Amino acid sequence: PHVPYVPVLYTPEVMLQRSRDFYTLLNARRSVRFFSPEPVPRDVIENIIRTAGTAPSGAHTEPWTFVVVEDPQTKHRIREIVEEEEEINYKQRMGEQWVNDLQRLRTNWVKEYLDVAPFLILVFKRTFGLRPSGKKKTHYYNEISVSISCGILLAALQNAGLVTVTTTPLNCGPQLRQLLRRPPNEKLLMLLPVGFPAPDATVPQLHRKPLEDIIVFV
Amino acid sequence: PHVPYVPVLYTPEVMLQRSRDFYTLLNARRSVRFFSPEPVPRDVIENIIRTAGTAPSGAHTEPWTFVVVEDPQTKHRIREIVEEEEEINYKQRMGEQWVNDLQRLRTNWVKEYLDVAPFLILVFKRTFGLRPSGKKKTHYYNEISVSISCGILLAALQNAGLVTVTTTPLNCGPQLRQLLRRPPNEKLLMLLPVGFPAPDATVPQLHRKPLEDIIVFV
Ligand SMILES: Cc1cc2nc3c(=O)[nH]c(=O)nc-3n(C[C@H](O)[C@H](O)[C@H](O)COP(=O)(O)O)c2cc1C
Ligand SMILES: Cc1cc2nc3c(=O)[nH]c(=O)nc-3n(C[C@H](O)[C@H](O)[C@H](O)COP(=O)(O)O)c2cc1C
Repeated sequence: PHVPYVPVLYTPEVMLQRSRDFYTLLNARRSVRFFSPEPVPRDVIENIIRTAGTAPSGAHTEPWTFVVVEDPQTKHRIREIVEEEEEINYKQRMGEQWVNDLQRLRTNWVKEYLDVAPFLILVFKRTFGLRPSGKKKTHYYNEISVSISCGILLAALQNAGLVTVTTTPLNCGPQLRQLLRRPPNEKLLMLLPVGFPAPDATVPQLHRKPLEDIIVFV
Repeated sequence: PHVPYVPVLYTPEVMLQRSRDFYTLLNARRSVRFFSPEPVPRDVIENIIRTAGTAPSGAHTEPWTFVVVEDPQTKHRIREIVEEEEEINYKQRMGEQWVNDLQRLRTNWVKEYLDVAPFLILVFKRTFGLRPSGKKKTHYYNEISVSISCGILLAALQNAGLVTVTTTPLNCGPQLRQLLRRPPNEKLLMLLPVGFPAPDATVPQLHRKPLEDIIVFV
């Protein structure tokens, strides 16, 4: 059944102010690769994942699983898996252009933050579901839906004063899925270390495109 | 070069409160398919797209273009293209299971909102870029990056009191790209009508999964 939609109504001035404030908040977001070991309240993480779970999804399939790792041994094992694969990515798999494109970010295959950050969130997409009958249920646009949900997760982290770096650890999916005992219909999409920045954390000096380079009015 | 990262710092109580409030805000988001023709301030739309442009992207490629359509004739032409293709999708292309899966949403191929909503935002992913030398520049993970950016866009719309429905008009990409004169390296990813809800707008009565169905602690 359908139900009435209850709108939120703001005056134009309030809309403008809210849109400005939200831009200011999110424009301060940066990918941080140096973490403090300081603990983060678990309730905050739960609220943030609840928020990610409000995302739209193709045919309302909600095709996401958020695995939150706080156990130090599991974090360390994740680090070993990621560093081993990333070293191969940098040295052999990906070619010179890729390494060059990443140079100004000064990233490499050593990922100390995987040990240090108090939480690692591994985001899995559920590529299909199962109906009560046991029949497969198609998850339309599952990767797009989960990525949208991650965008909302990033906004929620920033809103709470936490930092992360969005990563897509190449070729680590199957090993991490097995380590975390996720079923075969779940595929790793992103790995997000979450916590407070290290006191001396630095970020690459980057500029964002001006509005006129990304917007076209018709 | 790297620069110091300047963190935002909140007390644990404030973090918790902010995370709760943000959840409440975004949990009120729904996909709305019935729009009011009431105009929306253009500055608000600009701020919202600026906000979407703060998203992270693979190797900082910022592979997005937001085409904002307000011209009634162009909106109508978009509607014709989308309805023609969607009617084929529903009647022939997609099969009975797809039509069944969508039944409880009561969607079909008639998209009046494409005429009525004051703005249509067509989100294109730039599948590759061009270096100053004219050589192709790979856009790593462009679809994921643009989808993350759309997640942030949806949060920004909700924050400003606007509504949309996330749509991925199947098979309409090439025609819409040509209509809007976007270059061949840009592919349509999403179409978002944006505005205020119609006073009598309804939404399908849906439930979201409880936290324990989407989170796993390790
Ligand atoms: C990738 C994606 C594609 C979607 N495609 C369509 C679409 O083509 N038409 C439509 O009416 N809704 C579409 N939706 C909206 C979903 O049906 C909607 O998000 C879902 O039913 C949950 O409802 P809610 O957004 O109100 O929470 C899409 C959503 C996503 C994330
Ligand atoms: C899909 C995607 C994949 C990414 N993969 C990595 C990664 O594997 N390692 C990394 O250090 N950063 C990664 N990043 C972060 C980008 O390098 C970063 O977002 C970009 O340089 C812009 O910086 P900012 O996030 O501080 O604005 C990724 C970002 C996205 C969106």
